[in-house]
Amino acid sequence: MKIIIEKTIEDAAVTAANILLGKMLSHGRVNLAITAGKTPVRTYEILSGAVRNKPHFSRVHYYNFDEIPLKGKDGEDGITMLDLKRLFFNPAGIPACQIEALTGTNYQEHDKRIREAGGLDLIFMGIGADGHFCGNLPRLCRFDEQTVKTTVAENLKNRPDFAEILATVITQSGFSKDTANDYHVTMGPKSVMHAKEILMMATGKSKAAVVNKAFFGKITEDVPASVLQLHPNLTLLLDEDAAGELQNIPTAAKI
Amino acid sequence: MKIIIEKTIEDAAVTAANILLGKMLSHGRVNLAITAGKTPVRTYEILSGAVRNKPHFSRVHYYNFDEIPLKGKDGEDGITMLDLKRLFFNPAGIPACQIEALTGTNYQEHDKRIREAGGLDLIFMGIGADGHFCGNLPRLCRFDEQTVKTTVAENLKNRPDFAEILATVITQSGFSKDTANDYHVTMGPKSVMHAKEILMMATGKSKAAVVNKAFFGKITEDVPASVLQLHPNLTLLLDEDAAGELQNIPTAAKI
Amino acid sequence: MKIIIEKTIEDAAVTAANILLGKMLSHGRVNLAITAGKTPVRTYEILSGAVRNKPHFSRVHYYNFDEIPLKGKDGEDGITMLDLKRLFFNPAGIPACQIEALTGTNYQEHDKRIREAGGLDLIFMGIGADGHFCGNLPRLCRFDEQTVKTTVAENLKNRPDFAEILATVITQSGFSKDTANDYHVTMGPKSVMHAKEILMMATGKSKAAVVNKAFFGKITEDVPASVLQLHPNLTLLLDEDAAGELQNIPTAAKI
Amino acid sequence: MKIIIEKTIEDAAVTAANILLGKMLSHGRVNLAITAGKTPVRTYEILSGAVRNKPHFSRVHYYNFDEIPLKGKDGEDGITMLDLKRLFFNPAGIPACQIEALTGTNYQEHDKRIREAGGLDLIFMGIGADGHFCGNLPRLCRFDEQTVKTTVAENLKNRPDFAEILATVITQSGFSKDTANDYHVTMGPKSVMHAKEILMMATGKSKAAVVNKAFFGKITEDVPASVLQLHPNLTLLLDEDAAGELQNIPTAAKI
Repeated sequence: MKIIIEKTIEDAAVTAANILLGKMLSHGRVNLAITAGKTPVRTYEILSGAVRNKPHFSRVHYYNFDEIPLKGKDGEDGITMLDLKRLFFNPAGIPACQIEALTGTNYQEHDKRIREAGGLDLIFMGIGADGHFCGNLPRLCRFDEQTVKTTVAENLKNRPDFAEILATVITQSGFSKDTANDYHVTMGPKSVMHAKEILMMATGKSKAAVVNKAFFGKITEDVPASVLQLHPNLTLLLDEDAAGELQNIPTAAKI
Repeated sequence: MKIIIEKTIEDAAVTAANILLGKMLSHGRVNLAITAGKTPVRTYEILSGAVRNKPHFSRVHYYNFDEIPLKGKDGEDGITMLDLKRLFFNPAGIPACQIEALTGTNYQEHDKRIREAGGLDLIFMGIGADGHFCGNLPRLCRFDEQTVKTTVAENLKNRPDFAEILATVITQSGFSKDTANDYHVTMGPKSVMHAKEILMMATGKSKAAVVNKAFFGKITEDVPASVLQLHPNLTLLLDEDAAGELQNIPTAAKI
Repeated sequence: MKIIIEKTIEDAAVTAANILLGKMLSHGRVNLAITAGKTPVRTYEILSGAVRNKPHFSRVHYYNFDEIPLKGKDGEDGITMLDLKRLFFNPAGIPACQIEALTGTNYQEHDKRIREAGGLDLIFMGIGADGHFCGNLPRLCRFDEQTVKTTVAENLKNRPDFAEILATVITQSGFSKDTANDYHVTMGPKSVMHAKEILMMATGKSKAAVVNKAFFGKITEDVPASVLQLHPNLTLLLDEDAAGELQNIPTAAKI
Repeated sequence: MKIIIEKTIEDAAVTAANILLGKMLSHGRVNLAITAGKTPVRTYEILSGAVRNKPHFSRVHYYNFDEIPLKGKDGEDGITMLDLKRLFFNPAGIPACQIEALTGTNYQEHDKRIREAGGLDLIFMGIGADGHFCGNLPRLCRFDEQTVKTTVAENLKNRPDFAEILATVITQSGFSKDTANDYHVTMGPKSVMHAKEILMMATGKSKAAVVNKAFFGKITEDVPASVLQLHPNLTLLLDEDAAGELQNIPTAAKI
């Protein structure tokens, strides 16, 4: 694990953009899986300016690593893809042929498609205050899972609140509650771990506790992101607020 | 995970040698951590002949990934290193400057030394019938551990049989029981997972059950080797006997 | 440049097979361009046995790097491919979908196909006593050439003997002289240099002089293979006979 | 060759910084050889801000690839190192232990030091209007050269103006003419080609002709930089002015 602690959110956003651009400027095809959500907003602003109308990025392919489809629109853009388009693909002018959508209907082919395209060169992701990453929620995920569909019906016992969680995401994205679906799809821990490199970005005080727990604590399915400690090529990118509870950065972290 | 199933033990031993030689013939410094024990005996016979007196292997450095020191000889060759010398380093004529020993006294520097040497390019290892790999035994290992010293005293509750296990290994290696020490040292799961590539070899019917459980079952500290499923560059090398209980090789295994 | 000097032709053939197998056992798709001719005969015997009926080699794709088509059969197997099939593809049972033929009609697409498949991971080649490699003959090749068609008509001045050379190759392969074509196709120096790794094998006293000249002398189009000195990842594999005229192996060669 | 054409010098400088930062943010030790001169001035301004006081760049090591020592100060900082310190190392606060100086006295060890440190991950360089790169001037360089000392005395015939060239560089750097030395040292073409990646940046109309000649013309020692066409991992970074004479960018350039 390589740890980068930047003073401010802005500095962290710039460094995330630098890491992503460095990868995107590589020779040959580059496969990136990237996160929606609030953490990367500023990074995507920077990237959009850097990428727009630049033909030398034409061999970068973008993947989403989870999706929350709207009811009755299983094979179409869901909450994640709509978000990515708004934040990055549209302002950056990314052509459709470079966008490799994971949807509610093609998730069983997702790992195979990635594998045949040469694997993911980088996954850019964030962490939830509950320790989740991608759609891997505590008590909903097992470390051995690849890309999966996780349904409300199959998880009534361990996560009786899952339907509500899905509904909340839907309404926070501006859709009415009755468009909420009864599942999501996500790359599981095993699929994520098979990427060549992982960039995990966390900013703000609200993430300080979980950052300490996930990256310097026990590896357990109760804190799904803790599994990422095991990746041979993980960069943990923090601002000072998110790094606020790290007391002893282990020597081994200083790769 | 790339799965290779060979007809016989001999075929598997040859393929292991091919994978190792391929890596050892790379340009620049190559860092290998290699296993002692019975599984690799034939592989080391082949390697010894291929490597002996060949100057083009002079930039290969060899690491042991665990050690069971004899009583009062904490900084010297223990059971693992003695075994490696007998099986491979001596017949192959490997000079001392290419052997990077992990001992009972330098284990706290092991991860740092590896990191500063550029990381391990490959770890070649086996699996125990109980699911252990390196010195990572069920109920003695946590996935977040790096190179550690594991003592009898600290594990009386979870592994009351640990002293006996250590004594058995010592006597099976031809030493008297009173030379048994009260600890061993090992690269933990996190250290192992940070290697660039892992070659896991298992042969014989006695390994069939654990192979199925560890590489196609749940990832849990109860089966320490199950964590290796998560490595982006794992090759599982089996003979048909060891592959005997695999029913459905998941598509995603066919990298 | 990494130099490997083996005692005998047999040892060199085994080492070539080891290097090739090491690469072929990598994860993911592997792209190899391999040589026909006499030098690799024994290596292909070893490889054929190792590869036959082994599904874990199913993602290895094989390319020929030059072709001498028969008259009127421009898009079909020529001398090179027929040779590769006889020496390796047939005895090894390589399925057609893993053979990526360069022919007299598709040569203009060859570099693009390779690039889109992720580039060549390794080119395995030999050297001619005149310093040629692939179809790059002295006075017929320029270092800046990619995959090209080289015709008799366009080279009457600089290589008036080219028609004869082509005819000789044809008849030595058992075809009648009137099936000789008036051109060949070959990956040029630039295409070859863009491979990730090059394995150059030379054996026998008849190669000693050219080995010294090409790999330790001036880089010039008069000795086409001399350009390979510049490759960041070149292995020069010799037997003692072919290494017989090397006097001072430069320090820098000992990568 | 990957070609990047940016609208302005500023855009090109930013992209160069992005490529360098991407590499510098990699895990483990990173070895960079970087250019002095006018072309990179703005890039170093950007880098200095990004790197200063950031501990996560502490494993980046910087090499100069040529040096023009002052008279009587052969083992000390010469024109190149003084320039790099002024432009980048000082404003960026790079500690001495990360600066690996090539000097007039240690040049014979330079290639070995680089090799033992794992090789150069990237060389960032420019091109002269005469086609030179590093200190490889037309009629002074041979493609097979590694790091060498080039003296006035040995080149009186082929470059009678070499003493004058050296004197001009010295005086343009603010030193008096009588401090001019009678040699320089430089990584030769072979040393440069052995780097893993090359970033060649050229901006301004004054470079348009040589860019076209060097990267799309014949490969010849008369245009030393033309050899870089052969590198498997070359990025050619231009502004529109420097790209002004490119007529047909060959398909194969679009890697």
